[in-house]
Amino acid sequence: YTANKKRRRGGSKDTVKMNIGGHIFETYRSTLRRLKNSMLANDEKLKLYYRPESGDYFFDRDPTAFAAVLNYLRSGELHIPTNMCGPSLQNELVFWGIDELDIERCCWTNYNTWKTQCRSLEKLEYDRKLSTTQNIILNKHNSTCWQRYRSKIWTFLQDPTSSRIAKIYAWVSIIFVLLSIFSFCAETHPMFRVKPQEIESKSMQKIYEFLNMDKYDWPNQSGAVILDHQNITNANLTSPEEATVAEPVVEPQSDLLYDNGEEDYYDEETYRERKRKTLPHPSLVVIDLSCLFFFSLEFISRFVCSPSKIKFMRSLQNIIDMVAIIPDYIEMIFLMFDPIGRKGMVIMDFMIILRMLRLCRIFRLIRHVPGLWIMLYTLKASFNELMLMCVFLLIGMVVFASLMHFAEGNEGYDNIPIGFWWSIVTMTTVGYGDMYPQTGFGYIIGSLCAIAGLLTIAFTVPIIVSNFVLYYTHVQYGLARREKDVERMQE
Amino acid sequence: YTANKKRRRGGSKDTVKMNIGGHIFETYRSTLRRLKNSMLANDEKLKLYYRPESGDYFFDRDPTAFAAVLNYLRSGELHIPTNMCGPSLQNELVFWGIDELDIERCCWTNYNTWKTQCRSLEKLEYDRKLSTTQNIILNKHNSTCWQRYRSKIWTFLQDPTSSRIAKIYAWVSIIFVLLSIFSFCAETHPMFRVKPQEIESKSMQKIYEFLNMDKYDWPNQSGAVILDHQNITNANLTSPEEATVAEPVVEPQSDLLYDNGEEDYYDEETYRERKRKTLPHPSLVVIDLSCLFFFSLEFISRFVCSPSKIKFMRSLQNIIDMVAIIPDYIEMIFLMFDPIGRKGMVIMDFMIILRMLRLCRIFRLIRHVPGLWIMLYTLKASFNELMLMCVFLLIGMVVFASLMHFAEGNEGYDNIPIGFWWSIVTMTTVGYGDMYPQTGFGYIIGSLCAIAGLLTIAFTVPIIVSNFVLYYTHVQYGLARREKDVERMQE
Amino acid sequence: YTANKKRRRGGSKDTVKMNIGGHIFETYRSTLRRLKNSMLANDEKLKLYYRPESGDYFFDRDPTAFAAVLNYLRSGELHIPTNMCGPSLQNELVFWGIDELDIERCCWTNYNTWKTQCRSLEKLEYDRKLSTTQNIILNKHNSTCWQRYRSKIWTFLQDPTSSRIAKIYAWVSIIFVLLSIFSFCAETHPMFRVKPQEIESKSMQKIYEFLNMDKYDWPNQSGAVILDHQNITNANLTSPEEATVAEPVVEPQSDLLYDNGEEDYYDEETYRERKRKTLPHPSLVVIDLSCLFFFSLEFISRFVCSPSKIKFMRSLQNIIDMVAIIPDYIEMIFLMFDPIGRKGMVIMDFMIILRMLRLCRIFRLIRHVPGLWIMLYTLKASFNELMLMCVFLLIGMVVFASLMHFAEGNEGYDNIPIGFWWSIVTMTTVGYGDMYPQTGFGYIIGSLCAIAGLLTIAFTVPIIVSNFVLYYTHVQYGLARREKDVERMQE
Amino acid sequence: YTANKKRRRGGSKDTVKMNIGGHIFETYRSTLRRLKNSMLANDEKLKLYYRPESGDYFFDRDPTAFAAVLNYLRSGELHIPTNMCGPSLQNELVFWGIDELDIERCCWTNYNTWKTQCRSLEKLEYDRKLSTTQNIILNKHNSTCWQRYRSKIWTFLQDPTSSRIAKIYAWVSIIFVLLSIFSFCAETHPMFRVKPQEIESKSMQKIYEFLNMDKYDWPNQSGAVILDHQNITNANLTSPEEATVAEPVVEPQSDLLYDNGEEDYYDEETYRERKRKTLPHPSLVVIDLSCLFFFSLEFISRFVCSPSKIKFMRSLQNIIDMVAIIPDYIEMIFLMFDPIGRKGMVIMDFMIILRMLRLCRIFRLIRHVPGLWIMLYTLKASFNELMLMCVFLLIGMVVFASLMHFAEGNEGYDNIPIGFWWSIVTMTTVGYGDMYPQTGFGYIIGSLCAIAGLLTIAFTVPIIVSNFVLYYTHVQYGLARREKDVERMQE
Ligand SMILES: [K+]
Ligand SMILES: [K+]
Repeated sequence: YTANKKRRRGGSKDTVKMNIGGHIFETYRSTLRRLKNSMLANDEKLKLYYRPESGDYFFDRDPTAFAAVLNYLRSGELHIPTNMCGPSLQNELVFWGIDELDIERCCWTNYNTWKTQCRSLEKLEYDRKLSTTQNIILNKHNSTCWQRYRSKIWTFLQDPTSSRIAKIYAWVSIIFVLLSIFSFCAETHPMFRVKPQEIESKSMQKIYEFLNMDKYDWPNQSGAVILDHQNITNANLTSPEEATVAEPVVEPQSDLLYDNGEEDYYDEETYRERKRKTLPHPSLVVIDLSCLFFFSLEFISRFVCSPSKIKFMRSLQNIIDMVAIIPDYIEMIFLMFDPIGRKGMVIMDFMIILRMLRLCRIFRLIRHVPGLWIMLYTLKASFNELMLMCVFLLIGMVVFASLMHFAEGNEGYDNIPIGFWWSIVTMTTVGYGDMYPQTGFGYIIGSLCAIAGLLTIAFTVPIIVSNFVLYYTHVQYGLARREKDVERMQE
Repeated sequence: YTANKKRRRGGSKDTVKMNIGGHIFETYRSTLRRLKNSMLANDEKLKLYYRPESGDYFFDRDPTAFAAVLNYLRSGELHIPTNMCGPSLQNELVFWGIDELDIERCCWTNYNTWKTQCRSLEKLEYDRKLSTTQNIILNKHNSTCWQRYRSKIWTFLQDPTSSRIAKIYAWVSIIFVLLSIFSFCAETHPMFRVKPQEIESKSMQKIYEFLNMDKYDWPNQSGAVILDHQNITNANLTSPEEATVAEPVVEPQSDLLYDNGEEDYYDEETYRERKRKTLPHPSLVVIDLSCLFFFSLEFISRFVCSPSKIKFMRSLQNIIDMVAIIPDYIEMIFLMFDPIGRKGMVIMDFMIILRMLRLCRIFRLIRHVPGLWIMLYTLKASFNELMLMCVFLLIGMVVFASLMHFAEGNEGYDNIPIGFWWSIVTMTTVGYGDMYPQTGFGYIIGSLCAIAGLLTIAFTVPIIVSNFVLYYTHVQYGLARREKDVERMQE
Repeated sequence: YTANKKRRRGGSKDTVKMNIGGHIFETYRSTLRRLKNSMLANDEKLKLYYRPESGDYFFDRDPTAFAAVLNYLRSGELHIPTNMCGPSLQNELVFWGIDELDIERCCWTNYNTWKTQCRSLEKLEYDRKLSTTQNIILNKHNSTCWQRYRSKIWTFLQDPTSSRIAKIYAWVSIIFVLLSIFSFCAETHPMFRVKPQEIESKSMQKIYEFLNMDKYDWPNQSGAVILDHQNITNANLTSPEEATVAEPVVEPQSDLLYDNGEEDYYDEETYRERKRKTLPHPSLVVIDLSCLFFFSLEFISRFVCSPSKIKFMRSLQNIIDMVAIIPDYIEMIFLMFDPIGRKGMVIMDFMIILRMLRLCRIFRLIRHVPGLWIMLYTLKASFNELMLMCVFLLIGMVVFASLMHFAEGNEGYDNIPIGFWWSIVTMTTVGYGDMYPQTGFGYIIGSLCAIAGLLTIAFTVPIIVSNFVLYYTHVQYGLARREKDVERMQE
Repeated sequence: YTANKKRRRGGSKDTVKMNIGGHIFETYRSTLRRLKNSMLANDEKLKLYYRPESGDYFFDRDPTAFAAVLNYLRSGELHIPTNMCGPSLQNELVFWGIDELDIERCCWTNYNTWKTQCRSLEKLEYDRKLSTTQNIILNKHNSTCWQRYRSKIWTFLQDPTSSRIAKIYAWVSIIFVLLSIFSFCAETHPMFRVKPQEIESKSMQKIYEFLNMDKYDWPNQSGAVILDHQNITNANLTSPEEATVAEPVVEPQSDLLYDNGEEDYYDEETYRERKRKTLPHPSLVVIDLSCLFFFSLEFISRFVCSPSKIKFMRSLQNIIDMVAIIPDYIEMIFLMFDPIGRKGMVIMDFMIILRMLRLCRIFRLIRHVPGLWIMLYTLKASFNELMLMCVFLLIGMVVFASLMHFAEGNEGYDNIPIGFWWSIVTMTTVGYGDMYPQTGFGYIIGSLCAIAGLLTIAFTVPIIVSNFVLYYTHVQYGLARREKDVERMQE
């Protein structure tokens, strides 16, 4: 210390004055020379900034950042004032020739948070622009009438804020999505299923026959019509002779189904049979068809008007749109080429998966609900953290299921995989109560499992959530912020 | 870079000194001219601030904000020191002719948070003042005696802090609300229901008959009185001959009811019948009537003394007050004009809804518990975020219910709508255990559902909560802060 | 604006230089005069600080705070730099004669948080010192031997850090608390209960008879001993003749109890009888008595050595200590004066409540676990927020229970009070599954209830938690910080 | 106040100019002398920094920190600007001779947080380096060929980023861990268990016999082979005569097992017998053996190549590795020395514990998932907070279980320890529903328990989580940050 002080006192003659944007800094020349690679140690460069009239070195830079730099030279530790924005500091550090990696441990996290946030927000804005507006740059002179027309439709479809009618169209689009989802869900409910005998409209009967490529015993058709479909799948249950006199048999059966429905409601046979023997309500069929028509039309319009077909097909949004309508067409094509009789179980399962893809229609809402887009974007951006949560949960799952198996293997935990479900249900604190420990050791393991779950979730969720909040507030504010006019600055 | 440096060195002769409130800034004249629209690029304006004696431009402004502005001109990026309050910066930016939209991405969220908070707190204060005090500005000279009297009552009713007696009145008001709610709840409990035979006070019998417009077999009246009401509704159960000898029949029936109550307690018929055959305890009736009287009196007093009838009726608080008392009057009127015999099922349902409106009385507490008001205000202010949470939950509900239906449609999930309930119960981690998956696929979907629920809630709740905390702390502190004397400042 | 500028330009001649601790501020004289009440508007006072040699007003104050003050005068809005500590600013504002209530809305919350935290930490430190160390200030000269001795014991009992042996004593004390709690819990478990016939030690038998003032059929005593106690309470069950031949009858009964224990385990009679017929394990009795002895001894020592008897008895900690030992003595006294035979049901209930007070022993841990003390302190300090949470939960409880009652009154929700339990269980997301809605409306109300619960908890808990974290970190750091030497400063 | 001011005015002649790094501070000489121990009160020392030419004291230090120091001298309260990094301030305080304990209450927590974070991050980096890379410092000249080779293998095994092949190896290692865990879990599932009769490969039969030291009735061996094992343990069930004709008997038995599996699936006898009568699937045996081989080989390689055997064996990671493989060898040795027939129940239990140790293999993932390491590190670092959480939960558990016992001891809570499980399940909001209160008092206690649990968790988890987030972000950023070149600075 004493040596240090002496040198300073001795060196007091050669203090240097640095005028940084009007702010005067004074330091020993030796201090400036301490960091070899920095610009301040380079006498040649420094000389260029010397002003003889005032006897100082003048730099037209930010004085706050320079104060941090000078403190670095003085103390050998680069600390950053927390009130200074990271990216602005970065520029200054570059100018003064200081490596940002010299920032001390305590300030590093803070500095890096600024930088990472900045970069991720930049990425967010870029991705958002890409996924939503996808502007057409019109060549104003040589654009044909069709090009101008196309661009108008594109804007109309893509940007609800472009005009009043585009906004109305957006709402119509949302309503179609909701109707489609409603139909998808309602179709499975007994309330919205009718027996073929109840459908009296001729045209509806045609539609049902076209859609399912099957024949039903419509009320106006005589009982003599052979119930092809039922025959084939029920072959092992009902003898062919019985099938020819199906009508009088089926009626009491289905009555029976609904009479004592309470008891055998969950009986597998009953459920499948009921589903096979009933049809979705005509109104749902109409909704389904009109939604399909609307979505198809919209998708084709978009595709045709899209300025870049390749970019269009690579956008997640459009892929979802396509996945949500294609299954219906595949089903139709499939039924056209493969009429009644050869539908095996495998094909039925394939049909079910196809039908499930309709669920994608709900993700059409991404276009209309910015929060939804941000959530999915956050999940994508926080993929590492999500994986970490999964790893934590999986490890907890395996560990606690195993411990439980060894603690009370005889009481419901007789194999480890069955304990997985229990672990997850306990760690997420859902606790259905279908499985629970029943011995002392089991109680202790169960308690640890619940606490471990709480900690696991408490550890990983905040990191993901903070990203979401960052993105959400940014987009919220961003929606109100007009595009920055970059040409305002004259260089 | 080199070109840049050269120009700066060349331009070192024309540095400009800016004296901003005593703080000296020095920069190249070229730097000042870089932003066309700013005040600093405008030589004409600048000249007015020139002081020849000291050779600088003097501005009586905040030097910190100017440092940020100057850094903007130097680097082309507008960063804001985080320790500077947003609204104060805004004023400075306006003075220097810089658009706040030029603020960089990294500082924008921060700056906007300040601004938004400020604006929402201003709104909060405005709304709070509107909803609570609604001051009468007295014309001191030409106010009549009635006006002065009215104003006194108004203050007494509205502001518990105005006097000691107003505080006591506020507590009395709270007690009436609690009594009213207690009566509302207790009335449905068997402990507080009595059989008509047990009521011996003549006046209570009159009240019951007035309130329900019905006749009961009071203990002191002979068994010969016809049980009109019971006759009519029980017509399909008991033959008219039996009704004339109702008393000996009813007694064992009700005994039976309470004897084997454990088994058929939840039997619908039993529950409804028991409710019909019993009356609320006389004390509850007295409480009910006195609460109605108190609330009516208070509402009328308020209305009469209110300085602006229109504003009064548009206030949410007063609407709640009104909704909480009107049903009782409607019920009375209804019963007066429509005595026994014509009460169908539809009217009964309408009565039930009317009765439910009494529940609004609990929201009279808003007046007395500031936290409650803030919570409701937050929910209103965070309506978008609440909607987002609902959209997330609904999408999760639909997606997981559908997946579950396809995964284990045969075991309790045989239609999608029934799965909605399961999804919500799982996503909120309540997990009643009335429905739970039972197959491998179901387990996986169930786990995903629980995790999705946790994330959904973790994503949206913090945004709403942060608003609540902001409002709550503001009001907490604000209650201790006397009104700012705006005239203190002399211009 | 133009007028404003002109005045400023015109006034440029009379700029004032303020030297605040070496930092030069320059402003128009008119600016200084804008706030009437401030010190800067008072020319008389100001003159005293004028230094003719340098032509400025010199104040030896903080320049940062003055910058904020000057900006207030310039703009009329008092904003505070967020990096400045509230209490330090407060002093400066007082000096410059500015009212802290002039702080703008945006900075007010921030400033107040600083102040409130400071005050609550001060209170925390004060309360903590009071509740824990309660130092004796020794009059070093005229203290008798007894006083010195007393002070030593006091320090030994009160402060585990005072010496090595005091630390060991603290651990012994913790062990006694844990043993006492273990005994309290284990006593109720069948594993730790023995039948009187199994106790063979004579001295233990004496202890049992002394403690319970009852006679038992000890194994070495002949079967001729009359089971007094059983006789009296079982009078209505067993005829007196049978009681004289009780032994051969009791034995098979209790065997029966344990044989088919699985079925009638929860049968009330069985449970009560079993409890009456068995005694806690001798080891537990020994533990209980030694704990009582230790706690009594410690309490008396503390009381005797306590420097102030009044303060001692007013401390929560000592009240808990007393409440935790007194019930045992009351029980003993009670039994001494009221031997067998007259113990009615009322007295038994009183005994049970007395016994429950033993649970207070667990709160002796407050002395040893600082976190526990902080938690209780936080709950006390956040009483308003806790009340708010309760009000929210109660309102939610009433509202959702009522809605549920009207939605599905026939299915388990047939009175509102029973729905309270369901509401609370749902709102805290526990969801036992003992009650759950079963209709469509019920599902919707249930979902809303769960979401409302999540929000309610999310709203109120963070405010309480933030206090806890503040206190906890403060105490954590405070434990490492030696007392500040206030005399270091020479005035 | 007046006296104070007068002294200042009087003292205005002897203001002192301090030039701190170019920033001028001016104060009264008396102010400097106020703190006896500080360097500024020491005239001798101060004189050394005096510059007569400019009449000021020049220090080449940070002016911001000095501003805080000077404010301390002025006001007697040491407040710290929040934008200044703690560790950098610490250095300055040391230089100016000010004790950091003088920092005021309001700034102390903030300052200490900086310091504590810094220290804990330093510790984290140190521990991380120790646990992961454990570098070998090569003596470049006198290292033998073996040493160089060894070092290469070490780097290859230890650092996946060292080369492309090391990365592939890391993935192979992860896959082996997953396979091993898969086998561990699957082995207990009926799907992966086969009856000895189904194994036809001779070599697999040998392996089974070697591993279990037991004989089975292989399909290609005649039914005449005696089922030794089964005989011995089933001795009390099947008579020896029947055992000789075991095959025809066993077959229908096991069929029976799987036919009516639904009913007696959880029957203890059945479960144990089934386990004894079946063998893990051959593929699982192969996986198990190859994992054991791989892990053993890796462990030996690591051990041999480890630069320091002692450090190696003290690392947690390596202990886990060893614990995960040793049980298998112990089992093998045990079986070799103790063949069939003498395996008692005690040994079986010991075997089960040995087998459970295999679960440790899952913690080999620590090497590959940094987040996992950080979580465990956080739990270790937050040990105090975890303990606090446990103490809170345990106290809550005891209190609520006791209250519940007294409130409804007759309905499922007839001893306190059984209530512990209920308390924990309620406090963690899992709520299985296996136990729940059923009386009014029980409802109130249950509600309080749930709320207490929510608060308990809300109180303690955030403190632990904030540590995790700190560590996680630090490591995340640290992984991207190259090691700081400490020699860059020339002194
Ligand atoms: K739950
Ligand atoms: K549950």
